[in-house]
Amino acid sequence: MKNQKNGPWTVLDTTTGFENPWLRVEASNIIHPDGSAGTYGVVRYANIACGVLPIDEEGHTWLVGQHRFPLDAYSWELPEGGGALDTPPDISAVRELTEETGLLARHTRPLGRWHLSNSVTDEVAYGFLAWGLSQGAASPEPSEALQVERIPLADLAARIRSGEITDAFTHLMLMSAIDLARRGEIPEHIAKWLRDA
Amino acid sequence: MKNQKNGPWTVLDTTTGFENPWLRVEASNIIHPDGSAGTYGVVRYANIACGVLPIDEEGHTWLVGQHRFPLDAYSWELPEGGGALDTPPDISAVRELTEETGLLARHTRPLGRWHLSNSVTDEVAYGFLAWGLSQGAASPEPSEALQVERIPLADLAARIRSGEITDAFTHLMLMSAIDLARRGEIPEHIAKWLRDA
Repeated sequence: MKNQKNGPWTVLDTTTGFENPWLRVEASNIIHPDGSAGTYGVVRYANIACGVLPIDEEGHTWLVGQHRFPLDAYSWELPEGGGALDTPPDISAVRELTEETGLLARHTRPLGRWHLSNSVTDEVAYGFLAWGLSQGAASPEPSEALQVERIPLADLAARIRSGEITDAFTHLMLMSAIDLARRGEIPEHIAKWLRDA
Repeated sequence: MKNQKNGPWTVLDTTTGFENPWLRVEASNIIHPDGSAGTYGVVRYANIACGVLPIDEEGHTWLVGQHRFPLDAYSWELPEGGGALDTPPDISAVRELTEETGLLARHTRPLGRWHLSNSVTDEVAYGFLAWGLSQGAASPEPSEALQVERIPLADLAARIRSGEITDAFTHLMLMSAIDLARRGEIPEHIAKWLRDA
């Protein structure tokens, strides 16, 4: 293989160090700008992360609770899941919302696009605000043991500020939505709940 | 090895699928709550992520620019780096600030603690606000090719809102600091710059 450039580094070769259906670890031998040899390990994700902050006409939102294996800890989060790389993120996000909570959303708006851990992974997350909600039937994956709760938006904000909720994606979506609401970029009947949260 | 529980899962065995100085991938064979067999891959980080939002008396902050290998893209971010697991995060964060920018900080305040990607990794990030700044000498690691720029806080906010800056940790620190400033939990001579950002 011809040597390739990645920014200031020269990549001599890349092999797969580990692979499962969700991620692939690439191990590269590289040359630093100063000429010294080194290695780089990159965790490449098979999916994009998609998440939704749903808000109803009474200023409530929905949290999903589940045990997170990597932390060996229970975690309450906004509805989030993986989407295929070739599917528009808003489609995957709304599908995840419906699967986990049964909610259908007439309106969505992008909240942001974030690289969650860019020194080691290529994971990218897309967050959306959803409103105009109606209740359908949830259909969680059989391997997921989920709890769902509907709570006031102000309670979500309080649980984030207290440090109880540690999921970065949940935090990013709420804080971005509050920021947009304060700047007048969200319909007023939804924005009012965010400004008060 | 005796079977262990991790939430609703039974862990039959765990092996190391990949390892380098920065991360270790653990591959586990598990039993789901419904009795079916499965696997789980967890990326365990050797360090905690530590970051700083520095603000000076003129309402300016500092960004660090570098090429991020996993994205093959240039990225401007707040000063961030890895800290040893057994070192208090504020110590590591301030050390990273000084290494990358030369800044010394008389005061710090926690901004938050976040799990960046809890479905696959155990990575935890600690963010701090820093003020009472004075300029010392930077000492970046030789393998890092960094640029540093001092910019108004409002410019950082604009570059986050526009989507130019995609680093989640940078976004988390700024939005949390703005939230704390609006709630009166930051000294007024620093909070005023955040409320206007």
